[in-house]
Order: sequence, then C-alpha cells, then structure tokens
Amino acid sequence: MYVPPRTSLRVWPMLCGIRVINAEKSEFNEDQAACGKLCIRRCEFGIEEDQEWLTVCPEEFLTGHYWALFDGHGGPAAAILAANTLHSCLRRQLEAVVEGMMAPQPPMHLSGRCVCPSDPQFVEEKGIRAEDLVIGALENAFQECDDVIGRELEASGQVGGCTALVAVFLQGKLYVANAGDSRAILVRRHEIRQLSSEFTPETERQRIQQLAFTYPELLAGEFTRLEFPRRLKGDDLGQKVLFRDHHMRGWSYKRVEKSDLKYPLIHGQGRQARLLGTLAVSRGLGDHQLRVLDTDIQLKPFLLSIPQVTVLDVHQLAVQEEDVVVMATDGLWDVLSNEQVALLVRSFLTGNQKDDPHRFSELAKMLIHNTQGQDNGATGEGQVSYDDVSVFVIPLHSQAQEGSGH
Amino acid sequence: MYVPPRTSLRVWPMLCGIRVINAEKSEFNEDQAACGKLCIRRCEFGIEEDQEWLTVCPEEFLTGHYWALFDGHGGPAAAILAANTLHSCLRRQLEAVVEGMMAPQPPMHLSGRCVCPSDPQFVEEKGIRAEDLVIGALENAFQECDDVIGRELEASGQVGGCTALVAVFLQGKLYVANAGDSRAILVRRHEIRQLSSEFTPETERQRIQQLAFTYPELLAGEFTRLEFPRRLKGDDLGQKVLFRDHHMRGWSYKRVEKSDLKYPLIHGQGRQARLLGTLAVSRGLGDHQLRVLDTDIQLKPFLLSIPQVTVLDVHQLAVQEEDVVVMATDGLWDVLSNEQVALLVRSFLTGNQKDDPHRFSELAKMLIHNTQGQDNGATGEGQVSYDDVSVFVIPLHSQAQEGSGH
Repeated sequence: MYVPPRTSLRVWPMLCGIRVINAEKSEFNEDQAACGKLCIRRCEFGIEEDQEWLTVCPEEFLTGHYWALFDGHGGPAAAILAANTLHSCLRRQLEAVVEGMMAPQPPMHLSGRCVCPSDPQFVEEKGIRAEDLVIGALENAFQECDDVIGRELEASGQVGGCTALVAVFLQGKLYVANAGDSRAILVRRHEIRQLSSEFTPETERQRIQQLAFTYPELLAGEFTRLEFPRRLKGDDLGQKVLFRDHHMRGWSYKRVEKSDLKYPLIHGQGRQARLLGTLAVSRGLGDHQLRVLDTDIQLKPFLLSIPQVTVLDVHQLAVQEEDVVVMATDGLWDVLSNEQVALLVRSFLTGNQKDDPHRFSELAKMLIHNTQGQDNGATGEGQVSYDDVSVFVIPLHSQAQEGSGH
Repeated sequence: MYVPPRTSLRVWPMLCGIRVINAEKSEFNEDQAACGKLCIRRCEFGIEEDQEWLTVCPEEFLTGHYWALFDGHGGPAAAILAANTLHSCLRRQLEAVVEGMMAPQPPMHLSGRCVCPSDPQFVEEKGIRAEDLVIGALENAFQECDDVIGRELEASGQVGGCTALVAVFLQGKLYVANAGDSRAILVRRHEIRQLSSEFTPETERQRIQQLAFTYPELLAGEFTRLEFPRRLKGDDLGQKVLFRDHHMRGWSYKRVEKSDLKYPLIHGQGRQARLLGTLAVSRGLGDHQLRVLDTDIQLKPFLLSIPQVTVLDVHQLAVQEEDVVVMATDGLWDVLSNEQVALLVRSFLTGNQKDDPHRFSELAKMLIHNTQGQDNGATGEGQVSYDDVSVFVIPLHSQAQEGSGH
C-alpha cells in the first residue's frame, strides 16, 4: 500500500530582525501585519487527514518564513481577518503540493506513479519547477482567504476590504505576492529592484474597462466606461475630445454624446484615482458587500483577489550582510521613492554596528519616522504621509544562511 | 469661422532599400506583404469629407513609411484583403487625429478650442503625447480592417485568416504593431532589441482560459479549459495531476474527474500549440467563420484583432549606417534565433559596400536562403523552414535622414 507523506505548516510570531510599526495616525488603525516561521511537516508515512489522531510518525520539517502586510479600508475587519487567516490558507495549499515541491521536478502525478512513460518529459517541456507549485499555492491561498473573509464578514455583519502583500522565504527563494498598492523592494549596495507592481484602477484600466464592456449591466447606466482626460460637461457636447476604450493603450478622439457625460468608471489621477468613485485599489481581499454610495452598484465584480507573484532566487544573489527587502504599505511609497528609501537604508546600515540585533527594527522605525516629518534630512523633501504606514525590513543574509541548511 | 485642416494619406509601392521575398514553398503562398510611402496631406483650409471635390487648397505633407507582413492560414484570402486594406484603414484613422498629432501636445478638443482653462493640464497629467494618437490609430485601424475583412469574406463566400505585423515610420519614430506570431527586431552593432511579442495560444493562455471561464457555452461541452502537462486519459482518473486554471501563473494538483478527459482548449507545445485543436495564433485578422472541424464551435470569440504597439524613438538612437529593423513571418524565427539573425545581418553588412543600393534587398534574400538550407554556414545549425518566409529589412539610417526633414 502506498501512503503519501503528510505535511503540516505552523505559523508563529517571530520578531528577530523584524519589526512592525504602525504610524498610529488614525484612531482605528486599518493596517495589519503578520509574520512567522513556517514549518512544513512531512511524515515518512501517514494517513488521511480526517484520521489525524492516528498519526504516529517521525517528523521532518521544511522550514521557511512568512511576512504579510494588510492595508485595510472601510474599517479594519477584513485586514484583521486576513492577518489571522491567510497563513493558514497558504499552509493548506502548500501541504497539498509539498511532495511535488520536494521532488527534483514536480511529477505529473502527485503520487509519483507514472501512468505514461513520457510524463517526466511533458513536465520538462512545460518548464514546470518546484517554484511554480509555490506560486500556485500563493495564488490559490489568496483566493481561498478571500472566500473565508467573505463568509466571516457576512456572518458577523461586518464590512471592509484590504490589500495584501506577502513575502515567503522557502527553499532558498523569496516569493513576493501582491494584491493592492503596497510594495516590496530589494535594496543592495549597488542595486535597487522592485519586487512587486501596484494594482490600482489606473494600472488595471484595460481589465476593468473590458469587464464593463462585457457586462454593461454592472454600471447600471450610471457610469461611462470610457476614459477622458477629465470628467466631461455640457459644454463638451458635440466636440471631439480625447478618449480611450478597453482595447486601446493609445488615445483617439470621439464626438461627445450625452452618455459620455456620466460619471467615469475610473476617475482621477494617481493617488486620487478611484474605481466607481469609491475605491483606490483594484486587487485585494474582502469588499464583498461594498456598493457605490446610495446605489446598488457592486464593486466586487471589478476586484481581483489574485496576487501577482515574483520570485527572487536568494541563493543565486551572493547576498551581502546589508542586503534587505523593504515591504511597506502605500503610506511609505506615497512620500518616499524607491531611490530615497534605498539611500536611507544604505546610510543607516553603514552607520550602525553589524552585531546590533535590533538594527533592522531600528531601520524600519527610522523609515516610518521619515514619513512623519521627522528625521527626514536625508531626503530633503519634507513630505509627510497622513496615511497609516507599516514597514517590514527583511535582512536577506540571515535568511540565506538559515535556508542553506536545507 | 474655424475650418480644421484636412488630411489625406496615400500609400504606394516603394522598393528602395526594401525587398519582399516569399519562399514559395506552397503552391498558393499565404504570406502577403505591403509597403509604401505615407503622405498625410494637410490643407490650411478645407471642407467636409463628402464635399471633397470642392477642395482647393495648398497642400502640406506629413510623410512617413509603411511596411506590413500578413501570414495567411486557411487560404490566402484574408492576407490578400489585409494587404490591400489595412493601410487605407490606417490612413483614415490617422486623418481623423492628425491635427492633434501636429500640435505640441494633443489638445483636449481636436478643434483646439479650450472649454475648460485647465484642459492642457489634464492632458499633461495623463501624459498624453502625439505618439499615443498614432498608437490609438494603429489599434483602431486593425479593428476596422478586421471588420472589413469579415464583410468581404462573407460577401465573396471565402474563408481564412492572417497574422499582421506592421511598421510605420512617422515623425522620427518607428511604430511596430503586431497581432500574431511574426516578429520584428532591431539589430545594431552592439544591441539586439525585440520590437514585438508573439501572440499564440500559449502566450495568451490566461486571457483565453478566462474567456472560457466567463462564457463556458463557447466550449459546447466538448473541451476542457484547464491546462495539464499532457492530454489526460482513462488511467489518470482519480489521480492528482498537475494543472492550472485561468487565474494561475503557477501550477497546482487536482484530482482528475471525467470532464478533465475532454480535449484541452489549448493543446500542444511551442510550434505545435493549438487553440481548440485548430489554430496556432491567438491574434490576427479574419477567421470570422472558422469553426472546429465537424462542430459548430467558433474560434473567433477567442481571437483578438488588436495589435500590441511598441515605439522606437529613432531620432534618439544616434543611428548608424548599419542599423536595421528585421521584420519576418514565423517561418524565419522558427529556424533562426534573434542572435543568429543579428550575426548574419552584421557579417553581411560588414562585408558589403556601403554604397550598394541593393544591399538591404540582398540581405533580406540571404536571410531567406538561410532558412532553406542554403548559405547557412554562419549559423551552423542547418535547420530548414518548411513554412512560407517573408522578410523586410528596414535601414534606419535613411529613415532617420528622411524623417529629420520634418
């Protein structure tokens, strides 16, 4: 009888080298964070999940780390649920595929059984690697977590949504999964690399317009899906004005009709850009009940809970002591550019003792202070963030050393 | 009275420095090409289009060049129609916006009239430039041409489709618009830059799976939208196998059900990949009537006629005598890599007299010969293309010089 090895994954708080600092600008701070060590348990032999109490086996651990930032809106409920739930969803998803992850190449059949002699060749031709299973697990975990949040919010009569930025260090690689407008960057002595993209009504314009084109009923005749440089008014009627539709990356001119005067599906620029006049992000978790004020128009059909995942092969980086990943909610990036953050990081780490165990926490604190109009001599900009700000600083060197043990 | 300037655009054959060579492997060669000089006529004063016979005005020309390759399938009809039509569609689209293109910045209103004092600021904030109007004109021209082809094919009882790769040199910039699996690359002494991406069932997997998820009736119960490393069979039933769905860039495992044994929406690898078992490309023109063999399942809902447009600012390149853009149908790229083509181009142009007016035509011919198992010492690969092959070699130096006059 073949019995597949069993796995489990535990997350617990870990503070060594990591610090979560909320700017505490709002009474009910809507940012939430979670971090912990991942221990994926594998058993040499095991049994079906519903008979867990029978498990008697030697344990083997695949360890990693998990960091997550959730920037809430419409109340903190969704962000709190996400901080409490997403790591469990990820554990379940990783558990379901860990045998495939541990193999030299993920086998066509999870059992390892070969139905067709050329199965390994098919997998090889598709270029499927262990990291693709982690990416898939992250994608599915976000979706599963969004379903849980939807049910929990409905059951408790709460509302709200949140963005989600997750970093997972596993088997020598750092996975960054992002749904929303938080950001993670890699800062090294001679390199700055953005590890995530932002998902906002502006960056996802074509996807959102396409949806409104496919399902016009979603706009209930109240909005126009077309983009114009500004909201049109009566004086524009009959004029040929700049516009673009879902299929266009470029611009063209169209003669203004009455329906073009409706409120735009996506309106405003940069930080002010809003989806249906309501939401500043186009991906995230929650918002299942969110409607445009005083209407029955739902936001959720336009939102994606799927993250974009990027992979950083830390073991191939020749990591230096001062190499870090900075993860932060939009409050930081609204006032500091990647380059400014990199300058602050480098000058801080050069000036602080290498053996100070608190220096990465102090660095995170210093970055926050720089958004609050304090200690901002280094940037010389003096810009101040009125948003919540949360920052993780992940020192890659200790990760690479820990990770190399496996 | 304000009368907007009128424009017109003519295309005629131009062979100087350009050569179209078809490999003539098939009796009815399905590759088609078109090229010509663009003359966009602007009048200082003019009248409505339907009174064209009244036009009496001094002419002013905005000149450019147009090159296009169309790789037909299911017969040459669509490719021939595209070669005869697309430039006219582009002319119409450019005519409609040329006043905006000639302004320092495209005005909010094509008339130039300012309804709102801060209109220029709105346009500035959106970052809308003249090149965005050309991109929009190309996007709309492809769509318009696809509509024309659909009507013409239906009226004449013909069938077929084609890919389309278009390059337009205008106002110091080269625009490359691609819908299909042809490719354009820039070759310079120390640089190779791909100017287009290919659109195939594999590269557009998520968009195609998403459509099948949204409109399951498009598959008529005959296909599965899920991707597996190979087509599943009875022995796989009940096993957990590698798969991915529309929302996944990564992979996961699922337990095989009976419906997973259906023929896959996208099947095969690389050159063998097919959409609904039928088509090797996911963008292009035509195919309005195409159906899966012996069924009523249509291909067209899954195909896009919209190109992806990239812009090369030739005036900023400090163009050298030997800098060229190579445009070719997939027959070339199936047997030669970008690097191999660049090697062939560089060694050919080094060895040939600078003042030979035919050297770019000879270069195009040499590239074709290299795919036919002749003159392929340079690549040492000896791979042979059995597909039609068409190549344009565009010398950028003469373009930049001509273009600088405007």
